[in-house]
Parts: sequence; structure tokens; C-alpha cells
Amino acid sequence: MSAVVVQPSATGRARLRPLDAGRFELVDGFWAERVRINRERTIPHGLQQLRRAGTLDNLRVAAGADGRYEARADSVGATFPFLDSDVYKWLEAVGWELGRAPDRELAAAADEVIVVVAAAQRPDGYLNSYVQVVGDGVPYTDLSWGHELYCLGHLIQAAVAWHRALGDDRLLAVATRAADHADAALGPAGRPGVDGHAGAEMALAELARVTGERRYLALAARMLDLRGRGLLPGAERFGATYWQDHEPVRLAASVAGHAVRQMYLDCGAADVAAELGDDELLAAVLGRWHDLMRTRTYLTGGMGSRHRDEAFGDPYELPPDRAYAETCAAIGSVMLAWRLLLATGDAGYADAIERAMFNGVLPGLSLSGTRFFYTNPLQRRTHRAYEAAGNGARAPWFACACCPPNLMRLLSSWQQYLATADDDGVQLHQYAAADIHAPMPAGDVRLSVRTRYPWDGLVTVHIVQTPDRPWTLSLRVPGWCNSGTLQGPGGSERLAQGTMRRTRRWQPGDTIELSMDLPIRVTEPDPRVDAVRGCVAVQRGPLVYCVEAADAPPQTEIEDLIWDSRRRPHTEPRPDLDPAMVGITVPVTRHGRTDDLTAGAIPYYAWANRAVGAMRVWIPC
Amino acid sequence: MSAVVVQPSATGRARLRPLDAGRFELVDGFWAERVRINRERTIPHGLQQLRRAGTLDNLRVAAGADGRYEARADSVGATFPFLDSDVYKWLEAVGWELGRAPDRELAAAADEVIVVVAAAQRPDGYLNSYVQVVGDGVPYTDLSWGHELYCLGHLIQAAVAWHRALGDDRLLAVATRAADHADAALGPAGRPGVDGHAGAEMALAELARVTGERRYLALAARMLDLRGRGLLPGAERFGATYWQDHEPVRLAASVAGHAVRQMYLDCGAADVAAELGDDELLAAVLGRWHDLMRTRTYLTGGMGSRHRDEAFGDPYELPPDRAYAETCAAIGSVMLAWRLLLATGDAGYADAIERAMFNGVLPGLSLSGTRFFYTNPLQRRTHRAYEAAGNGARAPWFACACCPPNLMRLLSSWQQYLATADDDGVQLHQYAAADIHAPMPAGDVRLSVRTRYPWDGLVTVHIVQTPDRPWTLSLRVPGWCNSGTLQGPGGSERLAQGTMRRTRRWQPGDTIELSMDLPIRVTEPDPRVDAVRGCVAVQRGPLVYCVEAADAPPQTEIEDLIWDSRRRPHTEPRPDLDPAMVGITVPVTRHGRTDDLTAGAIPYYAWANRAVGAMRVWIPC
Repeated sequence: MSAVVVQPSATGRARLRPLDAGRFELVDGFWAERVRINRERTIPHGLQQLRRAGTLDNLRVAAGADGRYEARADSVGATFPFLDSDVYKWLEAVGWELGRAPDRELAAAADEVIVVVAAAQRPDGYLNSYVQVVGDGVPYTDLSWGHELYCLGHLIQAAVAWHRALGDDRLLAVATRAADHADAALGPAGRPGVDGHAGAEMALAELARVTGERRYLALAARMLDLRGRGLLPGAERFGATYWQDHEPVRLAASVAGHAVRQMYLDCGAADVAAELGDDELLAAVLGRWHDLMRTRTYLTGGMGSRHRDEAFGDPYELPPDRAYAETCAAIGSVMLAWRLLLATGDAGYADAIERAMFNGVLPGLSLSGTRFFYTNPLQRRTHRAYEAAGNGARAPWFACACCPPNLMRLLSSWQQYLATADDDGVQLHQYAAADIHAPMPAGDVRLSVRTRYPWDGLVTVHIVQTPDRPWTLSLRVPGWCNSGTLQGPGGSERLAQGTMRRTRRWQPGDTIELSMDLPIRVTEPDPRVDAVRGCVAVQRGPLVYCVEAADAPPQTEIEDLIWDSRRRPHTEPRPDLDPAMVGITVPVTRHGRTDDLTAGAIPYYAWANRAVGAMRVWIPC
Repeated sequence: MSAVVVQPSATGRARLRPLDAGRFELVDGFWAERVRINRERTIPHGLQQLRRAGTLDNLRVAAGADGRYEARADSVGATFPFLDSDVYKWLEAVGWELGRAPDRELAAAADEVIVVVAAAQRPDGYLNSYVQVVGDGVPYTDLSWGHELYCLGHLIQAAVAWHRALGDDRLLAVATRAADHADAALGPAGRPGVDGHAGAEMALAELARVTGERRYLALAARMLDLRGRGLLPGAERFGATYWQDHEPVRLAASVAGHAVRQMYLDCGAADVAAELGDDELLAAVLGRWHDLMRTRTYLTGGMGSRHRDEAFGDPYELPPDRAYAETCAAIGSVMLAWRLLLATGDAGYADAIERAMFNGVLPGLSLSGTRFFYTNPLQRRTHRAYEAAGNGARAPWFACACCPPNLMRLLSSWQQYLATADDDGVQLHQYAAADIHAPMPAGDVRLSVRTRYPWDGLVTVHIVQTPDRPWTLSLRVPGWCNSGTLQGPGGSERLAQGTMRRTRRWQPGDTIELSMDLPIRVTEPDPRVDAVRGCVAVQRGPLVYCVEAADAPPQTEIEDLIWDSRRRPHTEPRPDLDPAMVGITVPVTRHGRTDDLTAGAIPYYAWANRAVGAMRVWIPC
């Protein structure tokens, strides 16, 4: 048992080994603070909202309690059948948190929820409050829209987290019986069926890893093989691409349709490929990934440019204003990139994780930890159409509440993404002040990493404990980093993109300094991205910046600003938002004028934490 | 009785008088050809499609025949309750066509349809096949989504056309009884109610004009006054703006929500304002119109930039690739601009009609007359996402078939939009080869207009008959026209924007020549339109041009083309598409290169009549 979010089995194919969550301790700084707020504010807020929305009570009703089912019906008579998954994602987050450190209150709350979940399960193992209460109780009759296997997947993920982080198998018992029920109906002995919303595949692969039961892996592989063959009725609405049923998973050359579904599907494909050593399947995932990075990913790592079906658009169709860029899609991309990093060892996947975490995931969560964005546009105008829902501000919860608990479970497991190990050494992928313990065949490695990253580019790695044999310390040099030095035992060298490796017989007390220059980068878009032609964006280190109305020159609408290339931007502290935050003052003028003005740019993840106002990432030049 | 699409009554307030359809005869050239194809190809095709889709049989089933109701259900269980309106719009088109010239076959087909419509009407006057067959027969229970009054509106419009064009009141008898039924339920003696899809308001105003019955006008005014007060349930889906129920019609400062609904609503408001002399209501419509022209109208006259809810977006949110620009919205804008032209006499509304007709409406219809576009994007990429429906080619019909018969009825009445009269003279608004007969208080005016417009800028007006008293001939100088001359009796003068007026005692045989220069115009977008920054578009006369893949340089994707400002575009005949068509050869190079290439640009209305390929209106420069 090891407390990791994705655990390729010993017989599977993986280049890198994840490290147990318990091997990391976030010390202070940027990520420690975000993770702390998630634990202290976001997760308790989530429980409150699950209660308030009736989502938890739905499971109680399924367990036989009196009460009305709250399906959060939308206006056209459709109801949301997937709400159980919100509870499971919250449970997963709590599992990781309790694994990081005990908390009596959180544990008691989770115990209560686990009891409800277990009580809601039918004697035959089936568990889905919507089908049991609102539906006719017959499982798997609406695989297109019903989200039954999607919910099962999240139940399994929660169970896996509790098993790995805490050795607590109460949920695993429930999840295993539910998976057995699905396997009997839809496995080799059952009928062919896939879920309109992928997600169960990766969960089943993990369940196989945890239990050693290959049937679950076979069911995941079967669902992957059956997808793309038109099994799902109802495709008239958004097309079969919406749920990736238009082309077999091994053949589809590009991502398509609903962005979250595509990411979750490819996570499952990557897991199954790893377990089965299926290089063809992995190659298909990698091919889609690289095409996705090249043609359909926002500067922020956001994904999905269409509101209509929450979908990927054409290549290079990346409108900043109508970006959908669902928080869950960015989370899904982190989950997928992590699997591809483990599979290949390529630092480029860690780059993608970094970009998505800072600029695609974090913007979905307020600095306070209790308000959320579902979509993450890169532009908001001063004058706007009447809003369909609210005023565009962050919301405390959503009728379709997938994103908030997804943020919770990712942040609660985030420390695991910092480093990996292999037989040759330790790889540092993400930079945060943390103590890291990596067991190696020759003995334990203990590292103490200190940094003010992302505000500062200096990362100091202290060797606290080391085996007496040579091993390799690998440090990722982010794709955005063009200059800097690596200093320490073995000498000083200039940074090269990709990975810096230093192999030696390390001594306790050795100190390595990775010093990345953090110039302000003024970025021009790919010329094929029509929607932001003639604009520039400001970046520094891993952070994408934006200008909010609150930081525009007085009496000036953000739409009038033009980047003034005669002058240079400079950094400036932003203690009004965060004592450590580095802002950027950008030189602007106004359309048709030559006045020397400046506007304040802040990291995009921090936008919309003051008044809700206009905002731009891409500034006309 | 006069055969006109909109007939302000004598007591109403209007600056200009429409002329009876019978006073116009299209002779040859551009519009005569489009109108001929509509009559000979599009309208018969429409009947065939109404039969094939089961739309006509739905009314038969409502009349008691055996058969299955074809509601063209979409995938989520919703069905289309508005299909009757397709039949009514087709009937309206046929009414105008039979008024233009008899046709035995068309008349026989229409007679058959009219009999079915009349037979479907219930004894109490109510008529809606969906409610009668699929629903529970209780009228007006789902005003939000049911489209009952919308369908009633189209029934009335068809009845008005048959009355005015042919003096045939069979449909009028049906429509009057149906309107009486609605009035009893929703009029002053009934409950308050408005329809989710506006449209009945303008129809009821016209019914009042035809019948002299003020109750219908009062019902229209009541619906206008009740809208914007949150009467419509179901607004959670797209917001109350979707159906303009967010703000009273007199107060809303800008258009919002579903574009077609907004256009139809404002048509009704303009009609009611004209009949009641309600200047406040008219001012609200005018205010929205000018804001719409300034902030939310595509270069093509297209309207609606969001797919999700077929809606207007934020100001200046005008993406070319994801333009919704529904054909019906452009048609609605023509209907509205016509009303505003009659109300005010301002040539700017005729400019808007011209732009929308050539570039917003006509692109919706294939050159062959039997294939349609529902949405009209200004860009189509070489490499595309998998299509949700079909391959993006024009379709012979749609499940929601509002656009095709809307095109039919507009083209069949189009000649009426060419000219108006007032007590001082005759106003020529649109230029087409046509003979025009305008009765004036002092005697008849007969004009013979000859032109090759829009290919050529020369318009020759022959005075064939004239009263012996001075009167004013007014000729619109289009907003795009910066130079040219007006020659004829009274001398020669340079054109000034707006309207050229010449008042004199005209003689039969007098000839006036309006000569508009037609240079190629290279247009830069408004700097606030983010989506096409750094691009130019090519226009000539009233036509917006585009480059299709078929006319791009060999081995070059359209996305690689850059406008080459070192060289100049020039005109070139395009007999491959139309013997009269003037194409434009544009100078281009490729991104990052300096090669001297050219691409062929054709009028945007003619795109997608060859292979379905990439296309751009806005070209990077």
C-alpha cells in the first residue's frame, strides 16, 4: 500500500515511480498556503454545501430515510443524475487530508458520510441514489446521459484514496461490490456498454491495482475498446464526438467533444496502457496530447473553447472571451499529464502540470477558498450582455457542482506531484518549499527543498540524508526558462531546457542551488490563433498575468488600452492581494493616443478576488 | 387593400408609404434572378420538404386523419412544438408569389394546404397541431417554450399576405378566429401572458390593420407591455434575456438574448408604436437599433454571436468562426429596418437592409435555391473539429426549419422593398432593374430603373409617366459610397452620403443617371472587435467578399495567408460562378515569407456553392 493518486503496479509499465504522500511535507510558501486553505476552508465549506444542496440527503433517501430528492432540475425538465459524485470527490479529498494529518472534526464528518454511502448501497451491490430514488431502479438503462459508471468511478477513487492514505477499507468494500455489480452487467459476461461520461476506466484500473483483481482492469479495457463504435444513443444532440464515441480510442488522432470527458477517457487509456504494457494505446493518447498542446490549449492551460457543449473547438479556435476552460478540464489535464510523466519520464508533462496548476486550476478557486469559477475566460469586457446566471462573480457552489470538490481532491493530493523516484535517483518536478523523503534501493534519500517560487526563481535543495552510493538528482528546467544556473557539489553549469541531472556520491549537508532567471516575458500568440491576433500577454516564471479594471488607469476602460512597446514593464509588489505577490506594471497607452500610462497586471489565478470587473490576459499592441 | 408586407394604417404614424407589390416588376439582373429561383426552385422544394418531414401531415392529424405526429424530437426528450409555423411561412411566400403572377400548380398546392389548415382548426377557433395532438389540448399552458402565439403570428402573416396579395380571405377567416381565441384567453378579459418567442405582436398589429379591429392591436400592445416583467417561467436555462423578459420593452437600452426573438419583438413594437403614435415605444426600438448597429452587428449584417443560446453577445463580441448569425436573424433585421425606414424616412435603414440582404440573408440560400445555411459564420478553418451535425455543408432542410421558408417569404415580397412614396414624391431605396409604378396625389409616376447593380454602380432611371406638377425623386446614396455623380435634367452633381433629392416638373422621357463609384474597399475592423484585430476585409459596393480554399494559392492553407499591403487588389470576372459576377483578386503572401501570391475573393453570399472548404472574410494583414 502506498498513498499515491496513481499507482502503476509492479508488473505495469512506467518510467517513474510516484512517492507516497507521506514522504512529502509542505513547509511554507505558495503551495503550502494553497493546500492549507483547501484543508481549513474549502473542504469544510464543501461539506456545508453538500448538506445545503441536499446532495448528501439524496444518499440518505436512497438508504431509506424520508425526504425529497434534490436533483437540481434545470428548466427544461432534465434533472442531474450525477450528484452522488460530488460526495465521493469530497470524500476522496478528506481521505488524502486525513492521511496528511489527523483532524478529529473532519474524520467525524467523513465517518458520517461513509455510513450514509454504505447504507445507500443495495443488497445486490448497486449504488446510485438517482436511479434508486428518482429512476425506476433498473441499472444501466441510460448509459448515454445517466452517469452511473461515472459516479461509480468517483466512488472507487474515494475508496482507493481511503485505502492508500489511511488503510481504511470501509469505502473499498462498498466500491468493490458496486464494481462487481457493474462487471456482471457490462463485463465479458454481460452486454456491451460504455458511459456517456468517461471516468470509470481509470478508477477501475486503480481498483485492480489496489485489490489485485484483474477483472476490473479487464472491464476498463473493455470499455475503452467498445468506445468509438456508436454504442451510445442520443448523439443527435451534440454529435458522437461529445462523449468521444465517434472513433475508437486507439485511432482518434485528436481530442474532440466535451473536454472533461476526453481528459478522463485518456487518463483511463493511459492507466490501462500502463498495466497491460499496451504501447499502441499509449501512443494514441500521446498523439492526442501533443496535438492538444499544439492546437487547442489556452496560454493558461485551459481547455475547451465552446460553451454550447463544453467542448474543444477547431484547432487554434481559442477565443479569450468565450473560453469555456472549465476548471475540471484543467484538473483532468493535470491528472493525464501526471500519468504521461510517470509513463515516459519526459519533463514536458511536468511543464504542462505546472502551467495548468497555476493558470488553469487555481483561477477556479478564490483566494479565500470558498468561492469558485466553473469556466475560466481570459477576457471579461467592461460592458456586457445581461448575464444568464448571476453577475459573473465567483459562486459558493453550483447546481452542477463538479468543479469545487474536484479542486479539493487535487489540492489535497498535490504534494504527491512534486517529485518521483526511479532506480537511479530522485526527480524534482514541481518547486515548492517541502521536505521530501524518497526511499531508494540503496537507502533513503531525504531532501529539504526551500524556495519562494513562483515569486523567486531560486530553489535550494539540501541533502539531508543519502545512501553511500552515487545517485542522480534530476531537476526540471521549465519550458519557459531560458537562463539560469545550477550550482553545488560538482560545479556550476548554465541551465539547459528539459532536465538538469547531477549524478554523484552525495553527502549529507550538500546543497544544490537551482537559480532560474524570471524575466518578464511579453508573449506573442501563435499566428494561427485568430482570436488574439495583434495582442501580447505578460508572463513571469510559470505565471500568466492579466490586467483587471481595478488596476487600469483612472477613467479608462480596459478595452481602450494598447500595449506601449516604447516602454518596458517592470515588477512591483502587490501586498494588497498577497504579501508575497509580485505584480507587473505594464506600459500602456490608449487607442489613437500616445499618452504614457501604466496598468497593473496580477497573476491570472488571482483575478476576480476584488470587485467583479473587466479583465484581459491578451492586450492589444 | 394593398399588397404590401407592412401597411401602417392611415391613422398611424409613418413618414413613408409602401407601394403595392403589383406596382413593381423586376425586369432582369441580380434580384430578378434570385427572386425567380425562389419561385421556381425554392418554394416547390419547400413544399416537398414539408411533406417529407411530416410537417404538413401533422396538421392533417390534428384535423382528424390517421397518422403519427412528427415532432422531430431532439435527443433529450424535448420535441419541437413550432413546426406549424413552417407551413404558414411557406403559405405566406406562395401568397406573395401568386400575387406577382398566377401559377396553376402552385395555386393548387396552396389550396390543398389551406384546406388542411382550416380543417385542423378546432370549433372554438384554437389551432395548434402540437397542442391538439401531442399535448393535452389545453391551450396556452406552456407560454415559455410552447410557441403557440408564435405560430399564431405566422398564421396571421400568411392570412394577411393572401388577403392583400390576392383578396383571398380563406386563411384570414381561420386566422381571425384563432386570434379571437387568443384574445379571449390572454386579452384584457383574460390572464396576463406573453410568448417565449415574440412574433405574434407584429402579426396582430397587421391583423388590426387588415380587419380594422382594434382589439388585435390592443392585444399586441398588451403583450408588449407585459413583457420584461418576469412572467415567463423557465428562465433558469438561458436567463430571462433569452426571450427578452428581463426588462420592459420601453426600457431596455440594448438588444439581448436570442437574436431572432429580439428582432421579431422590436418589429411588433415598431408596428404598435406606428399605429398608436407611441413615440416613447418607437424611441426605445430606435435606441436599441442604433446600439445594435454600433456594437453587435457583423460586417455582413449577421446578428447573434453565440451558439449556446443563439444569442447576442457582449458589445463587440463578434467572433468570425463561431458567428451564429442565423439566417432568420438577418431576415428579422430586414423586417425591422423596413419598419424603421417607413417610420422615419432615414436612408440609414435602407443601408442596413441592403447590407443584410446581400451579405446576411442571401448566404443562407444556395445559388441553386434548394440548399440552406442556418448559421452563417465568417470563417471556416481548413482543419476542423469533428462536426456535431453533418460536414458543415448546406442542407436541404432542417429539423428546426425556420430559416428556409423565412427566406422564401422574404424573397417573394422583396420587390416591395425597392421604393416608397410620400406626398412629395418617390424614394428609391434599393437598386434593381425594375419597372415601378407609384400613384401620387397629383397623378401616377411610372419609372423604369435599369442597372447591373451590384456588379456595376450605374443606375439609370427613366421617367415613363409623371404628373404635370413638380415632385421629388429621392435616390439613396449607400453609406459605403464616397464618390459618384447624379446626372440628368437639373444638372450634374457630386454624390453626398444619405439621400440625393431632385425636385422638378419631370417630363416623360427624362433620364436620371446615378453613377456610384465601386472601388474595392479594404476595411479595417473597429478596434474594439477583438476577434478580428489585425485583419482586413474586402468589400465592393454593397458586397462583402471572402476567400474560399478553392481560390487560395496551390498547396497553401487559408490560415497561412497574409494580406500583402505592398500590392493592390483588382477585380476579375467570375463566370465560373455567375456570368455577371465580379470577383476580386487579392494580393497575399504567406506567414513569415515574402512571396507574391494572389487569392480569389468572391462575394460572401456565394460561398459554399462548390466543395465545402475553408473560408475567410477577415484576412490577417
